[in-house]
Amino acid sequence: MNEIVANDKLGAFCRHTHVEMKGAPEGPLAGLGFAVKDIYDVAGQKTGFGSPDWLRTHEPAARTAPAVQALLDAGAHLVGKTLSDEMAWSLTGENAHYGTPVNVSAPGRIPGGSSSGSASAVAAGVVDFAIGSDTGGSVRLPAGFCGILGMRPTHGRISLEGVCALAPSFDTCGWFARDAAVFERVGRVLLRDDAPAPAPTRLLIAQDALAIAGDAVVKALEPALDKVAALVGRPAPVTVGDEPLSRWMDYFRFPQGVEAWACHGGWVTRVKPEFGPGIKERFAWAPTIDPKDVGRAKMRREEITRRMAELLGGGAVLALPSAPGIALLRNSPPRDLDGLRSRALPILCIAGLARLPQVSLPLARLDGCPLGLSLIAARGSDTLLLTLARALMS
Amino acid sequence: MNEIVANDKLGAFCRHTHVEMKGAPEGPLAGLGFAVKDIYDVAGQKTGFGSPDWLRTHEPAARTAPAVQALLDAGAHLVGKTLSDEMAWSLTGENAHYGTPVNVSAPGRIPGGSSSGSASAVAAGVVDFAIGSDTGGSVRLPAGFCGILGMRPTHGRISLEGVCALAPSFDTCGWFARDAAVFERVGRVLLRDDAPAPAPTRLLIAQDALAIAGDAVVKALEPALDKVAALVGRPAPVTVGDEPLSRWMDYFRFPQGVEAWACHGGWVTRVKPEFGPGIKERFAWAPTIDPKDVGRAKMRREEITRRMAELLGGGAVLALPSAPGIALLRNSPPRDLDGLRSRALPILCIAGLARLPQVSLPLARLDGCPLGLSLIAARGSDTLLLTLARALMS
Repeated sequence: MNEIVANDKLGAFCRHTHVEMKGAPEGPLAGLGFAVKDIYDVAGQKTGFGSPDWLRTHEPAARTAPAVQALLDAGAHLVGKTLSDEMAWSLTGENAHYGTPVNVSAPGRIPGGSSSGSASAVAAGVVDFAIGSDTGGSVRLPAGFCGILGMRPTHGRISLEGVCALAPSFDTCGWFARDAAVFERVGRVLLRDDAPAPAPTRLLIAQDALAIAGDAVVKALEPALDKVAALVGRPAPVTVGDEPLSRWMDYFRFPQGVEAWACHGGWVTRVKPEFGPGIKERFAWAPTIDPKDVGRAKMRREEITRRMAELLGGGAVLALPSAPGIALLRNSPPRDLDGLRSRALPILCIAGLARLPQVSLPLARLDGCPLGLSLIAARGSDTLLLTLARALMS
Repeated sequence: MNEIVANDKLGAFCRHTHVEMKGAPEGPLAGLGFAVKDIYDVAGQKTGFGSPDWLRTHEPAARTAPAVQALLDAGAHLVGKTLSDEMAWSLTGENAHYGTPVNVSAPGRIPGGSSSGSASAVAAGVVDFAIGSDTGGSVRLPAGFCGILGMRPTHGRISLEGVCALAPSFDTCGWFARDAAVFERVGRVLLRDDAPAPAPTRLLIAQDALAIAGDAVVKALEPALDKVAALVGRPAPVTVGDEPLSRWMDYFRFPQGVEAWACHGGWVTRVKPEFGPGIKERFAWAPTIDPKDVGRAKMRREEITRRMAELLGGGAVLALPSAPGIALLRNSPPRDLDGLRSRALPILCIAGLARLPQVSLPLARLDGCPLGLSLIAARGSDTLLLTLARALMS
């Protein structure tokens, strides 16, 4: 058993109950401090899931989630649990019940979510790394907004036992760091992979994803793309979608809603939780989704998976924006938040639908704020992306 | 939901309750039939764990284990559940309650266990592939005895949710096949890895493991070792252990016993199951293990993990026997079975302690029976081994 002591180091990035656990005395992560999104179980503690009603209606966890345990066993020291967007079903980082973690890299702006506390704690230097989760972009987007490294791994590669589910066929355990060597080391512990990574062979540029982000973003990403090209080779422009990516977004949204309802509909119906804006509307919508739309989405998902596997075969990497722009201002009107969501999801759904790993790199800035460049590779090419990230950040 | 129908195709490899589930209409495993060791949950069915008392005292599973579901989703058709040694805590394949599956590759001999039914069903051609589990050798040893391919993956790489535990820090989801292309395809589904595998760079030969097996085995493995050398390069002899491997075996045995008791001691104490020979003695021994021995074993395990990571760094593969010899005759006296265990575990514990992937290849024969050659690689080099296996078997 790892020792647990109360602490208050995470301050504004944390929910009210704080935990601290010592890691193993040695290991590849010895000496590093980390935080976990408050959707991961830690033995003896309640998991909050960003919802006061969830916290109130659940017992303390019997055991620590294997992903967290692997980090402790590798020598890292758990500093605390970080705030999640409510039920992890949001991209903003604004939690109506607990507030919004501070984005030190873009003052006055949202950190992005739903792994808002983990991303902002890493950006602020309070911890060396943090784990979050990424269903529809909840690691990649806040990594971009907060100017740090963020990874969504191959779906199914890292255990989500003891982690609150949102939509299991899309849910992944992701992580954040400022330093690319730490970022890779954490990844190798979570991925259980010490093998040498193959080098990328081709660089593809997602024209349709860039077009959604618009000219200012494209221009701001140019130097970063040049940097990738210098390492990987001359870029080839590609159109990712076989129809507009806004349609691909629906193939993500419908199954996500159905899975979220399958996971939590019983609890929602019984407990009648008071949801904040956005989450409330989505949980009201979820049980009304037409099964025909879901059936078509599932079929298209498999076609998209095959299309992406072909595109990325033999070691290609695909470059695209991590988000359609920089972080919005805090307390932006709902219309702007909805606008962010409807422009971000078509970009973010690519890796989600095709179950692919995607890394977000803090290689660009726009209007004085961080802007993330993302790279996607074939299923299982997680260490290829981590090694490439280290080369690009050095 | 996948359709369930009763069936009786597995006959003697199966326990009394049979299940069959259709896989997805397309996918990389479409058209293939598979069996699962009866320690994996299948929704609506009881999981037997090789013990009538376990079967009697447990409810049907609520959901299908994710590893099984991944195979169904990839298009494979579940033909049934196969016999496990009691509580998966044995290497013989002889279950005192249910009998011993037939080893068609070595008539009159044991199939090896504890994944006895899965290995023997694959060897007999009843299914294209099967999944088992490997804690201390329960896939690698029966693969060797039955003359088929068997894989123990990197520890932690494949989810064991919904699978009966024996010793979680050693338990892995392994698989068997006759055909090396099928074997790799199944692995890529379970490992979620489509990335090109790096090639091995160096061949090491485990002299101390070979010495345990003895001269006849060494001689019988020579042509197989030449075959590996022709692909990988001139072999270098190495001594794996920093002390005799029989000591390493203890660093495996003590934590295994403690973990088995932690998982099942409560049930054993409450239900007082009637265990067969071997399992009975081990469950009586488990609660008496000295914590000092376990503490030392855990410390040594980390040192061994680092030693093996150094030895295998940069793409090396280590060759060793899959077992100390060919399968014993059925109904051998307990002394012979104990002798097999005490010679097999020092060889098998290497990958277990260091959490490494190991493949067993049916590349040799001795006295008319199959003899397995094993290859171990660095943590995460699973696809390297699968690709190499395909090259060696072609």
